[in-house]
Amino acid sequence: MSAPAEIATVVQDSAAEARSRRSGGREARRALRAAPLADDVRPVRPGLEGGRYKPLVQNDLERIHEAVLTLLETVGFANAIPSCADVCVKAGAILGADGRLRFPRGLIEATIRKAARNFTLHGQDPRHDMLIQGTRVHYGTAGAAVHLVDVEKREYRESQLQDIYDAARLVDGLDNIHFFQRPMVPRDVPDPLAMDFNTLYACVMGTSKHVGTSFTVRENVAPALEMLYAIAGGEERFRARPFVSNSNCFVVPPMKFAEDACGVLEACVEGGIPILLLSAGQAGATAPAAIAGAVVQAVAEVLVGLVYVNALKPGHPAIFGTWPFVSDLRTGAMSGGSAEQALLTAACAQMAQFYDLPGGSAAGMADSKLPDIQSGFEKGITDVMAGLSGLNLVYESAGMHASLLGFCLESLIIDNDMLGYCQRCVRGIEVTDAALSIDTITEVCLNGPGHYLGNEQTLRLMQTEYFYPAVGDRFSPKEWNEKGKPDILARAIAEKKRVLAERFPRHVPKLLDDRLRATFGDLIKLPRSGMGL
Amino acid sequence: MSAPAEIATVVQDSAAEARSRRSGGREARRALRAAPLADDVRPVRPGLEGGRYKPLVQNDLERIHEAVLTLLETVGFANAIPSCADVCVKAGAILGADGRLRFPRGLIEATIRKAARNFTLHGQDPRHDMLIQGTRVHYGTAGAAVHLVDVEKREYRESQLQDIYDAARLVDGLDNIHFFQRPMVPRDVPDPLAMDFNTLYACVMGTSKHVGTSFTVRENVAPALEMLYAIAGGEERFRARPFVSNSNCFVVPPMKFAEDACGVLEACVEGGIPILLLSAGQAGATAPAAIAGAVVQAVAEVLVGLVYVNALKPGHPAIFGTWPFVSDLRTGAMSGGSAEQALLTAACAQMAQFYDLPGGSAAGMADSKLPDIQSGFEKGITDVMAGLSGLNLVYESAGMHASLLGFCLESLIIDNDMLGYCQRCVRGIEVTDAALSIDTITEVCLNGPGHYLGNEQTLRLMQTEYFYPAVGDRFSPKEWNEKGKPDILARAIAEKKRVLAERFPRHVPKLLDDRLRATFGDLIKLPRSGMGL
Repeated sequence: MSAPAEIATVVQDSAAEARSRRSGGREARRALRAAPLADDVRPVRPGLEGGRYKPLVQNDLERIHEAVLTLLETVGFANAIPSCADVCVKAGAILGADGRLRFPRGLIEATIRKAARNFTLHGQDPRHDMLIQGTRVHYGTAGAAVHLVDVEKREYRESQLQDIYDAARLVDGLDNIHFFQRPMVPRDVPDPLAMDFNTLYACVMGTSKHVGTSFTVRENVAPALEMLYAIAGGEERFRARPFVSNSNCFVVPPMKFAEDACGVLEACVEGGIPILLLSAGQAGATAPAAIAGAVVQAVAEVLVGLVYVNALKPGHPAIFGTWPFVSDLRTGAMSGGSAEQALLTAACAQMAQFYDLPGGSAAGMADSKLPDIQSGFEKGITDVMAGLSGLNLVYESAGMHASLLGFCLESLIIDNDMLGYCQRCVRGIEVTDAALSIDTITEVCLNGPGHYLGNEQTLRLMQTEYFYPAVGDRFSPKEWNEKGKPDILARAIAEKKRVLAERFPRHVPKLLDDRLRATFGDLIKLPRSGMGL
Repeated sequence: MSAPAEIATVVQDSAAEARSRRSGGREARRALRAAPLADDVRPVRPGLEGGRYKPLVQNDLERIHEAVLTLLETVGFANAIPSCADVCVKAGAILGADGRLRFPRGLIEATIRKAARNFTLHGQDPRHDMLIQGTRVHYGTAGAAVHLVDVEKREYRESQLQDIYDAARLVDGLDNIHFFQRPMVPRDVPDPLAMDFNTLYACVMGTSKHVGTSFTVRENVAPALEMLYAIAGGEERFRARPFVSNSNCFVVPPMKFAEDACGVLEACVEGGIPILLLSAGQAGATAPAAIAGAVVQAVAEVLVGLVYVNALKPGHPAIFGTWPFVSDLRTGAMSGGSAEQALLTAACAQMAQFYDLPGGSAAGMADSKLPDIQSGFEKGITDVMAGLSGLNLVYESAGMHASLLGFCLESLIIDNDMLGYCQRCVRGIEVTDAALSIDTITEVCLNGPGHYLGNEQTLRLMQTEYFYPAVGDRFSPKEWNEKGKPDILARAIAEKKRVLAERFPRHVPKLLDDRLRATFGDLIKLPRSGMGL
């Protein structure tokens, strides 16, 4: 017997023996193993507290804040739409002769003080509610990929509405992905209204987790609200527990308002939808190449959004969405998997904490086209650093490739494992008298068997302190060989097919869906057959 | 033209134009691009300072230290060989009636105060010297894998002496791998003396970077020293700049001396070889399952080694080699790629810093059998966290698979890219007035082109602040498709073949090698043909 196999046998025998002593036999043991762990003793869970990694020191944060205030007072924003200029000027902004809207530091500081914080982003199912606070970390999807990555054919094809629904229902069952922002654009639904409406429909029908989406123009918000209110069981119910947020690119970096998105923002604030204030400059192209400068610009831009939202409706929930991206300066192409991206995102998490605002930023965007070793390390490095920095909402964390141009369903399944690792790292190390193990070590060395296999502490921590991958492989080379050299991609493909054949979430009852289809008629493009109906 | 392509053209044109203004034309531009960057302006380099990630707070560190002192006073170590017991007792340890050697806290504290710190691990080429100090980070290989991973055949075969030499010469040319500890065992050289001698020979002939190796028994050290002194140009020269350290498993966890390794340790200290004091307990098997407890035991064990080394020769260079590993508690098998491993390693880095001792620990050990997405995220997460924690010497960081059972030459090449990313993350974010970019942002927004492409700052930072992968792929999906969907593994295979066909390091001149072969005769097993001679 090989040494690992021998150890395994001893562990299992010891475990069996110890459990048997405690619980009286095989049936009890089986029950113990089969019973799912309660949420509060699972090794990982949504909302673990990060923040042990701090790329910036306090003085850095203060200097960034000062630079931001200076820029907002002196440079400000171009291209405000009239309604935006109006509310901002009423709040204290100054519209210059050059058409730029400038923001005195008092206005910025007052806005930060009064802005919504410590709020919940709801799921349709309250089990998926996320309290956005402090350094609590949640991972989710996002993006506007135009391709679906076909792993079996090794090719990129246009993404479709059904892909969005399929991604949603996969995420619905993946424990380590906590929210679902629409990751792809439905290329088969070109009309902007139909695209916006069906994207949202596919998301909220596919998962009961919190959903993020965007809208092309202001006018497209109303029918979406009508649908959301219907699903919630009424407008007031939706306003009490909004389970959709609006990913809103209100800024065209550097420092200009995006006119259509501002219209959308106003309609969403009015309709009771939380806003992700998203500034997505690209360092070296639309933001400074210096990492600190890219952070300064992103913070300045998002704070303008915060003034805008709070001028429209004081205390409306808004996420501090500093998402500076990186250019590969050799080509100008975006590099989402780069080390510089990991640093930018972690720095943004710290700025959100500096203001005690709910922070969202992006990580996990691989440059690699396929789920390969490069995408693995790009995702692993950026996602774990985002979590360790205590970022509240890690967008783009799963499924994404080609620097946001391709989304991959198999990667969702594999990344769910990876995000389990990230969350276990975020959870960190418990230092208690019991964990320090003086008694355990003493007993094992002086009176015990000279090893910890089957030790009471080992058995106790096995399920609560150790994270195990679902598709990841931990076989020895011998076992791996005997089992036909299992391939993680093949496993993920099989798991995807299994889930997509079986899992048709029914949190929105069929009767209600019938009503939506009656109300919206041809506007709904997702066929019932694709929804298992 | 696609948006990225358009941006790329603008970047390149702007870059060309700006450079042209500064330097007077194409030739100057070409020279600028072709000239290698001086070491101090490269985006990454050996010895960058980490430490921005701290899984433990100060109180945790102090509690771990107290637990360690308690265990060393009360439990101590079993199985001291007579020479070890003698020197330790002379230093102040107490040999109990139960045969265990116990260490009063005063002895431990005095040893920590007096131990060697801030020393250099030398390369044969001084360019590769590593100053081990503070939170300076270096990445390298290590291990005793018994298999070489054949990526092309997707199989594990027995590792051979030539593989070690090949790994050494690959590492010799990979900038982001800073030292070479022998990663494999030559299964084709079964005799222990020949195995130890040839392993070392293959390493020191293959690379002029610092080498780590181990010895089976005390007697095998003398011929190795004879060879090393000859290569150095004399004993005194080697002692002045020892370019080999001894990876020494002096402890069989929990808390027992390894008798043969102690003999080796004594011979190496006497011969002038720095010692890596390596405690490799496995949490849940030979160390407590509680992460804090595994750290406590590892620190206690290594401090005993430090007492031993300093009792033999005060101030002899020794590395604080706390290497606690992780068991997958479902099977008892080691899980080197786990999240728990990342936490253990980062915690050990902090304990070394707590004592201001040169710390070495392990990261980058994938559970996955092949260079795939799983190995990517396992390596990425564990290696970046080791660096961010400021670990001085990150062993096992490149090339390793199957939790130390398989070593892969193609992974060395890919991991060199990944370690570049890790080092860029370790380097962190520069916050200076220039980097904060107030003037740059103001100029671009108010008077400039409204973007940063071709901006003076962008061009200046392009080479010095941004890390670019060598084999990693950052093409757009369109380019990727046009280029035949390049595969990172295929690229790494081609690069490995190219390097192994061309790169035969000659830092040990052929004349000297002739002399070694004359002196040691049949003991040298690596054929000259395999060394390009």
